[in-house]
Amino acid sequence: MDPSILDLIRRGVAEDMPNGDITSEALFTDQRSTAVFYAKEAGVLAGIEVAKSVFSVIDDSVLFTAFVQDGETLKKGTKIASVSGLTKSILKGERLALNFMQRMSGIATLTRRFVDAVEGTGTKILDTRKTTPTLRRLEKMAVKAGGGANHRMSLSDMAMIKDNHIQAAGSIRQAVETVKRKLPFGILIEVEVETLDQYKEALQTPADVIMLDNMSLELMAACVKIPHPGKKLEASGNMTLERVPSVARTGVDYISVGALTHSFSSLDISLKF
Amino acid sequence: MDPSILDLIRRGVAEDMPNGDITSEALFTDQRSTAVFYAKEAGVLAGIEVAKSVFSVIDDSVLFTAFVQDGETLKKGTKIASVSGLTKSILKGERLALNFMQRMSGIATLTRRFVDAVEGTGTKILDTRKTTPTLRRLEKMAVKAGGGANHRMSLSDMAMIKDNHIQAAGSIRQAVETVKRKLPFGILIEVEVETLDQYKEALQTPADVIMLDNMSLELMAACVKIPHPGKKLEASGNMTLERVPSVARTGVDYISVGALTHSFSSLDISLKF
Amino acid sequence: MDPSILDLIRRGVAEDMPNGDITSEALFTDQRSTAVFYAKEAGVLAGIEVAKSVFSVIDDSVLFTAFVQDGETLKKGTKIASVSGLTKSILKGERLALNFMQRMSGIATLTRRFVDAVEGTGTKILDTRKTTPTLRRLEKMAVKAGGGANHRMSLSDMAMIKDNHIQAAGSIRQAVETVKRKLPFGILIEVEVETLDQYKEALQTPADVIMLDNMSLELMAACVKIPHPGKKLEASGNMTLERVPSVARTGVDYISVGALTHSFSSLDISLKF
Amino acid sequence: MDPSILDLIRRGVAEDMPNGDITSEALFTDQRSTAVFYAKEAGVLAGIEVAKSVFSVIDDSVLFTAFVQDGETLKKGTKIASVSGLTKSILKGERLALNFMQRMSGIATLTRRFVDAVEGTGTKILDTRKTTPTLRRLEKMAVKAGGGANHRMSLSDMAMIKDNHIQAAGSIRQAVETVKRKLPFGILIEVEVETLDQYKEALQTPADVIMLDNMSLELMAACVKIPHPGKKLEASGNMTLERVPSVARTGVDYISVGALTHSFSSLDISLKF
Amino acid sequence: MDPSILDLIRRGVAEDMPNGDITSEALFTDQRSTAVFYAKEAGVLAGIEVAKSVFSVIDDSVLFTAFVQDGETLKKGTKIASVSGLTKSILKGERLALNFMQRMSGIATLTRRFVDAVEGTGTKILDTRKTTPTLRRLEKMAVKAGGGANHRMSLSDMAMIKDNHIQAAGSIRQAVETVKRKLPFGILIEVEVETLDQYKEALQTPADVIMLDNMSLELMAACVKIPHPGKKLEASGNMTLERVPSVARTGVDYISVGALTHSFSSLDISLKF
Amino acid sequence: MDPSILDLIRRGVAEDMPNGDITSEALFTDQRSTAVFYAKEAGVLAGIEVAKSVFSVIDDSVLFTAFVQDGETLKKGTKIASVSGLTKSILKGERLALNFMQRMSGIATLTRRFVDAVEGTGTKILDTRKTTPTLRRLEKMAVKAGGGANHRMSLSDMAMIKDNHIQAAGSIRQAVETVKRKLPFGILIEVEVETLDQYKEALQTPADVIMLDNMSLELMAACVKIPHPGKKLEASGNMTLERVPSVARTGVDYISVGALTHSFSSLDISLKF
Repeated sequence: MDPSILDLIRRGVAEDMPNGDITSEALFTDQRSTAVFYAKEAGVLAGIEVAKSVFSVIDDSVLFTAFVQDGETLKKGTKIASVSGLTKSILKGERLALNFMQRMSGIATLTRRFVDAVEGTGTKILDTRKTTPTLRRLEKMAVKAGGGANHRMSLSDMAMIKDNHIQAAGSIRQAVETVKRKLPFGILIEVEVETLDQYKEALQTPADVIMLDNMSLELMAACVKIPHPGKKLEASGNMTLERVPSVARTGVDYISVGALTHSFSSLDISLKF
Repeated sequence: MDPSILDLIRRGVAEDMPNGDITSEALFTDQRSTAVFYAKEAGVLAGIEVAKSVFSVIDDSVLFTAFVQDGETLKKGTKIASVSGLTKSILKGERLALNFMQRMSGIATLTRRFVDAVEGTGTKILDTRKTTPTLRRLEKMAVKAGGGANHRMSLSDMAMIKDNHIQAAGSIRQAVETVKRKLPFGILIEVEVETLDQYKEALQTPADVIMLDNMSLELMAACVKIPHPGKKLEASGNMTLERVPSVARTGVDYISVGALTHSFSSLDISLKF
Repeated sequence: MDPSILDLIRRGVAEDMPNGDITSEALFTDQRSTAVFYAKEAGVLAGIEVAKSVFSVIDDSVLFTAFVQDGETLKKGTKIASVSGLTKSILKGERLALNFMQRMSGIATLTRRFVDAVEGTGTKILDTRKTTPTLRRLEKMAVKAGGGANHRMSLSDMAMIKDNHIQAAGSIRQAVETVKRKLPFGILIEVEVETLDQYKEALQTPADVIMLDNMSLELMAACVKIPHPGKKLEASGNMTLERVPSVARTGVDYISVGALTHSFSSLDISLKF
Repeated sequence: MDPSILDLIRRGVAEDMPNGDITSEALFTDQRSTAVFYAKEAGVLAGIEVAKSVFSVIDDSVLFTAFVQDGETLKKGTKIASVSGLTKSILKGERLALNFMQRMSGIATLTRRFVDAVEGTGTKILDTRKTTPTLRRLEKMAVKAGGGANHRMSLSDMAMIKDNHIQAAGSIRQAVETVKRKLPFGILIEVEVETLDQYKEALQTPADVIMLDNMSLELMAACVKIPHPGKKLEASGNMTLERVPSVARTGVDYISVGALTHSFSSLDISLKF
Repeated sequence: MDPSILDLIRRGVAEDMPNGDITSEALFTDQRSTAVFYAKEAGVLAGIEVAKSVFSVIDDSVLFTAFVQDGETLKKGTKIASVSGLTKSILKGERLALNFMQRMSGIATLTRRFVDAVEGTGTKILDTRKTTPTLRRLEKMAVKAGGGANHRMSLSDMAMIKDNHIQAAGSIRQAVETVKRKLPFGILIEVEVETLDQYKEALQTPADVIMLDNMSLELMAACVKIPHPGKKLEASGNMTLERVPSVARTGVDYISVGALTHSFSSLDISLKF
Repeated sequence: MDPSILDLIRRGVAEDMPNGDITSEALFTDQRSTAVFYAKEAGVLAGIEVAKSVFSVIDDSVLFTAFVQDGETLKKGTKIASVSGLTKSILKGERLALNFMQRMSGIATLTRRFVDAVEGTGTKILDTRKTTPTLRRLEKMAVKAGGGANHRMSLSDMAMIKDNHIQAAGSIRQAVETVKRKLPFGILIEVEVETLDQYKEALQTPADVIMLDNMSLELMAACVKIPHPGKKLEASGNMTLERVPSVARTGVDYISVGALTHSFSSLDISLKF
């Protein structure tokens, strides 16, 4: 497991038991149990390795056996993993493992719905930076497990030129060219446009991706039709499950969906002894 | 701002710009702006101080002025706060501030709905440990802003005796008494029961709170009617907005709702320059 | 071993050898030894698991075998544990392991004296927040090993209403009621009183514990005699070994003793090769 | 204030209020107070700057004014410092500031007694590595405030050759010479001897300091009489207040006293509003 | 200053004075001085903001005034910055500020030489991942100050397909296509080739950059001549100051030079009181 | 491996792959390889244990077998170590292991040249505090591997009196005596002199080491000839390979060389699959 994720798990443990689990430590000595994580509703699994690591951080003698991997489909009742070891160690890890796995599976499940909604169109579903602070990496892993693609990880690894930037630079063209000149090697440039004129101006720049922001279906379709060699088009702005099929049919390359990570519901998973 | 929350904000900043904001740094030098956070939908605000601290961590010369405080109601269009300073500093903090404030306001808004649903009954809405790992404290602040009450913070600060514990101890009574004997001073004991018999057994123990877990309305009402001096009753188990009014009317003291923190939607808040 | 204690041990190692043990590294290569920790004076052991973890942090190939557990009585000469492995690893861990174990055993030993002094009275000996900064948890473990009970861990997990709070609120009753209304679920309230009138006022409040602060024996006895159903009484204020038997005989439930952690002497333990 | 001490203070704050001071936050809003730290018994002050920093960490608008500096004598009743600001901020910092300052002043006071006991002899009182793990630096500051001198800070900054090292090397001479050869530039060598023969052997080596370990007064006096140019003599081993005057009169350069840091009592200091 | 760089500075301070500056603290109380950083040899400045932050971390009352900015040319004797404040604070920061600024300026100076050597050709000089562990960001800032461009920051932000990867995938084409399919959005692909055949195969893939690794001038020239629309060419492999002009004249887009960060000499800068 | 070095390695890993190695993770699953580190030029090895730990941090199932130890001589082509395990784990660790080992070996190799240059004179080559911030300990290990000796580690462990200190104290004698009085036990004093008069004054003080700073050969020789019992002489100031033999022949005890750590070139080492 990646050291930065282990570090996050350790903080989660400290948060959930700064002074131990006073109940389990009072009632258990060396009793051992086996318990099973299973799905209480259908969905897509994500976070199985994180759940496993929760137990290894708490007590590395606990044996965790995964029956399902990230990205696989769960039915109501599917057994996800078994965990064997000291009963108190299992109880100590239960909630934290679930808190990770339920959230990640919730994201994967919602992502899968969006991916399925655009199936056959060639359009890809992207996440955004609208993630839970400090958990972005896990949430992006969950989007991937759901079949989505990951947009940029941070403000540092892709240039994204928005209206404020354009205004400061004077024009789309000047903004893109200034950024291009100053950018590290290998960093792509995306520019946000809201009108056809802006779109046409962006086509004249070395931008790699053009974000069609809050456009109507007609406008997006018009943009797609204008040749844009070497440039990818990303549709963005309040994308719902209902709307994405028609957006995808306009022919855009990507649809980015903030809701994947800001408005998902946890998937109902439970641990049964 | 509490040092542990500042630390979380710093991690959030590191996550979102490990190597700076390459776009804004390429396009802005010393331009200054004022921008306004406003609500794009109605709800309850939470996280205003966290949002403020995001900017102070990024650039302490940014001026952040709150117009609304945590717990206050937002209408669509309500101006929440203004932020003035270097344009690039505002852009660097925008997403992180929103990621905190939208989530916390989402929780506060959902909590308020539950609180409103039981209004007039005297029953209180409680959160649970089903929080996002490492963000529990913020999420509990949000529940409070929404009018809810905070259940125990961790496994360390209240004893919660569940079925595994009871089984290990032999009986509810033995479990409670063993825990009582070993517990630090000033720590309450809650015990989970699912049947009337278990409830009656729990009444004979020194438990402070009895959790009525996954009971029917009738069973809960029956429990409430049996005198339980010095003991509080908490209803738990898949509590929905639809169901909580009738649960509250049974007369339980508390209803704990996992969904407050595991299945909320972010409140739509935006920053306009 | 709990991760937060391991972290403390790691800091202790860094403090004691920021650049290694220059003497042992100059003189030892792969020599191996066995050494024995033994008591040089009688007392009560605490910290054996911490001592063990010191060696595992420094060199996890060192074998540490405990002969005595926390809370057990030591005579002069009692063998506490043996440690086998690279001589230089043993020497590196010796002082740190002793620094932890001697202090914790000193606290356990002093606590045991207080506990013995009130034997037969039903009164329990409590520690306080007068602990060494950042080592509270270890010191509270040591109090427990000595037979004492742990008072609240921090300002966050029990309300303790003192004179300043009462003054600000206007009266004991207003203070307790305000706190009661704002407190998280499951948090007890203790209120400090110094006179009989204050005590009587406190009895009218929902406070869970009343601290009889710096009272005479007579006054404490008078308080105990007034019925106080559902409320515990804690005597506090310069409690010495000489005085606690008579305090206990007044019938208070608890006596809290700051000296347990602020004025103990380390127990003399040594490591013999 | 040194960053590493600030870090320690921050950990102390986190320990004492992981989730805030629930009592003061419930009862105080913007009330302000002034309170005074004063001595409840005579002694020597240490830790005043640490106490000041506790408040600046908690709330940097608190004004802390010191009336006494480290190393100065306190009588019963001496006003040490005043602290003004939000009442809740003062209450939050009170215990932690006292926990640092009382311990450090306890060490300074005990040290001063030892220093006074050898007054006029030219012998200096040294501390040891028998300090509280992770607080060594503060405890050594306190020893200095009491008039004592600081022995080596860690295993890394002075070579200390003990019996195990000698045994491994074959002889005192071989041990010292091996260490001398491998030691970093500017690092002194101390060697521990228990008999006159060992002492004489040590005199033939390039050791800078010879520790006379657990010797009788007569034996120490005999060692001192043998010319030992360029070498300092340190007496060690269960040094008590009663014994150090006669040890000092043997003419040793230093007496090291573990009790300074392992068996002091906290000095009674209080905060009065 | 970026929080991650401040953190690095704090570690540097802890390394250079774990227990303070014992000399300056013994000799200075509140004396104040002004001192000037000046160049003892010609070069290009980098690290001025880091040097400034060193003093602000040590003592934020020190006034640091920069006369030259990163990227500007220094002659022997150029005054770079002045620093005013407590003499002991200036002395404490002197070495650490120099250690940062001399190294960064050494890198900037060496980079400038490479940049000048290819002047007029349109070829850009790139750094590599051959940086000092944990100081990469500072070293890349220095390369930029010298006029170079930054290659990828880490293994996470650009795909770089080397011979092992190709061998595992079966062919260049399969490697690039597999990576393309799995890569996050906005991440470029670079593929390393050593022969003309490999180069031609790479041209058939969606790789964005082709690295011409350890090729002769003739071979590089031949590659450049083959049309490679939408693809950038990077020359790599033991690039020296002598060789880069002719490499640049082949028409490659980039030359990456490991020596910029692995084999520079510190620029001689001094602080004069 | 020392915990503080492991911590540094972990930071290095986080720097080089904050979000994993996107190339290797896309192309490798469970393929295994063996690769060999070998020297591409002659030199002296340092950092082999650090390289080994890099792989154990990344994937503790990787097997690392060292064929050469720190301080041993490498010829062009010498096999240094083999590494076996998952191909992707080897590729992830390759650059970081090389970045450490090449730098450390570069320092060791340069140090060896200086040591060889003074061979037979009895003069020792010392490093300085001119090290890479936060990597001092590794760089001092490398100097040692090259046959050099380590000067003081930090401002905390040896007093070094320079011109500013002397000026503040009024004279060399006053400076040394003041420091002597305030210094912790076991800390040596070095004083910097530039003229014969200053040297003679320093001889009258209890300084342990006298640094002959920027003196001519003649002046150094004159100083050496004046008897200086119990004092060591260190020559300092722009020491080059060309100059050190004649400096050493003046009879000084030490020559300190900043270039060892501030202007070395990385040794060329490569990993071949």
